[in-house]
Amino acid sequence: MIVETRYVRFDSLPLDCGATLAPVDVAYETYGELNADKSNAILILHAFTGDAHAAGISRETGQPGWWDSMIGPGKAFDTDKYFVMCTNVLGGCRGTTGPSSINPATGKPYALEFPVITQADMVRLQKKFVDYLGIERLLAVAGGSMGAMQALQWAVDYPDAIASAIPIAGTWRHSAQQIAFNEVGRQAIMADPDWNEGNYYGGRPPARGLAVARMIGHITYMSDESMREKFGRRLRGKESFGFHFDIDFEVESYLRYRGTKFVDRFDANSYLYITKAMDYFDITNGRGSLVAALEKVTARFLVISFTSDWLYPSYQSQEIVNALRSLNRDVTYCELTSNYGHDAFLVDVAEQTEVVRGFLASTFREIQRRGTRRAIGPVPAVS
Amino acid sequence: MIVETRYVRFDSLPLDCGATLAPVDVAYETYGELNADKSNAILILHAFTGDAHAAGISRETGQPGWWDSMIGPGKAFDTDKYFVMCTNVLGGCRGTTGPSSINPATGKPYALEFPVITQADMVRLQKKFVDYLGIERLLAVAGGSMGAMQALQWAVDYPDAIASAIPIAGTWRHSAQQIAFNEVGRQAIMADPDWNEGNYYGGRPPARGLAVARMIGHITYMSDESMREKFGRRLRGKESFGFHFDIDFEVESYLRYRGTKFVDRFDANSYLYITKAMDYFDITNGRGSLVAALEKVTARFLVISFTSDWLYPSYQSQEIVNALRSLNRDVTYCELTSNYGHDAFLVDVAEQTEVVRGFLASTFREIQRRGTRRAIGPVPAVS
Repeated sequence: MIVETRYVRFDSLPLDCGATLAPVDVAYETYGELNADKSNAILILHAFTGDAHAAGISRETGQPGWWDSMIGPGKAFDTDKYFVMCTNVLGGCRGTTGPSSINPATGKPYALEFPVITQADMVRLQKKFVDYLGIERLLAVAGGSMGAMQALQWAVDYPDAIASAIPIAGTWRHSAQQIAFNEVGRQAIMADPDWNEGNYYGGRPPARGLAVARMIGHITYMSDESMREKFGRRLRGKESFGFHFDIDFEVESYLRYRGTKFVDRFDANSYLYITKAMDYFDITNGRGSLVAALEKVTARFLVISFTSDWLYPSYQSQEIVNALRSLNRDVTYCELTSNYGHDAFLVDVAEQTEVVRGFLASTFREIQRRGTRRAIGPVPAVS
Repeated sequence: MIVETRYVRFDSLPLDCGATLAPVDVAYETYGELNADKSNAILILHAFTGDAHAAGISRETGQPGWWDSMIGPGKAFDTDKYFVMCTNVLGGCRGTTGPSSINPATGKPYALEFPVITQADMVRLQKKFVDYLGIERLLAVAGGSMGAMQALQWAVDYPDAIASAIPIAGTWRHSAQQIAFNEVGRQAIMADPDWNEGNYYGGRPPARGLAVARMIGHITYMSDESMREKFGRRLRGKESFGFHFDIDFEVESYLRYRGTKFVDRFDANSYLYITKAMDYFDITNGRGSLVAALEKVTARFLVISFTSDWLYPSYQSQEIVNALRSLNRDVTYCELTSNYGHDAFLVDVAEQTEVVRGFLASTFREIQRRGTRRAIGPVPAVS
């Protein structure tokens, strides 16, 4: 399946901060065919550093998509049955407008002139894209990590526009620890003199700071156990400890490689803006309790978490499940056993595939039975 | 209790790497009185960034020692009964010879000319110090985190010189995850142009890189829960989200403050050398199994870990306990319940105090009963 990233330009997008961004480009890919009544559309929501290239082989780069194991013919998101879309998020650097895009007011990249953005802003742009395709109601929105936050945001902001939501390895608000890890990454970037208050475009990017930020990320994406299995205390290419601060251990080599490689594909200012948008994320947003925040939700939910994920621990998913159940919503929860930590939703997909496949099939059957124009919910709450 | 850090100079110290360091200064403090038969001496082993000022109020700075809650009259390490000592580690920057010390060969600070050091080297210097005081056998060696590694090293390298060992919140070898966190800290320091290949003495130190490294450390020292309790998602001094990458959340403010403050008291090259010495730590050191490595141990053990410590998780302490038990050694293990994560051994000391107090008292009684010159162990192993 050879795929191509495409682009669409929208005139403007109003933001939570009060500013309006104009124009706004969106990079996107689609897989499979939209059916006649437009009832088989699924929007995939990528994680922090992901992009629109979720599946297939890119015509430009020859690389498989970031969730190619989950999307395709016969896979969990079965492109023989469903029309699957993925867009790069607002604030990103992979084709959708972000801080590295040209600011029409100045003719130069926005850099820190880019406005503060939120998960709700990202979702508002995704909704614009779905409207542009003429799809009134999505069969599902689905994503892991930051994508899970957006799935929840969709369910709250556009209850009539989705039949189901699949938040995986996510949370309903960023915790102090999650904020802390992001903050250290931002500090590493901003400590790099090459960052230059965000004005590095056309010059040398803050490669060292960005690499350090990415290394921190990679540790949090893996588990103690998966790191032990992958690296243990194996030394790299030598028999004994090296001189000073060369690489001694394989895990060091891996982290440095991943850190350096990341610099080639990601913009440091996007790192700052998107992590802040995650840290700001709290679905209650002043509405008091989680239950109160989820009251308008009508979508069926499939919530998935992983046993060894310590960055987005299961209890955070379970709080979402409990709140939805207390509202008598239709929610399925699966805590999957995996040693792969937070990365599990990307790399340990056998069980996840079965669960998602079944959930989508039953949601699709239910929609067909009821007719596409009639909402499944809301189910009356038990008082 | 007003205390003063004192210093002693030794002619030389041979190191694991083959080099000899000469001379070597040791900064130390002592609390309480050594008894006539020198049977009441306890050596405290500090954690990564600690120093010799473990207890009392410093005459120079007016600050309490880092374990003042545990050491003093009537406390766990009761200075009415015991003679308690603490030295700054080899490679440190708080009075003991380290990379910021003057290299007699050049008249300038060692910087990266400082030789590679190990936990065993640090312990060898501690042994030299104990010999200097004329103490043949310590009642106990005790410490948390890196101090726990050294307690284990003492038990293996100098079995006749200690009656007991109290490793707290430690491990018998650094795991891939522990190495990874240290490596990111090192990378943050070395990415700072002010680091200048280690040659920053007399100039501007790599303050930004060192601060980032410290921030990472602080996250790993706390738990998800203790961070939530301490900070939650509270905003700092404002009603709503701020402009761009200013501080929004209290946890960000805390991390930046701790990062910046650390720079005033710690040397970046010491950070590099000491973290490497932790990463190299593996008590088996090529001796095959942990059981084989601990075969020569004769000391009684009190091993303590904390439920919420995810940096040095309980299973790592339990592996030490299991190995010692399989060798039929005298070992007590306590997993203490705490929300404070790895920091618990420093800040959540009520239960820890009871456990340590009882263990020291029974060890001291046993020594008195047998006479100081007779070793308690080894207990014959069950084959």
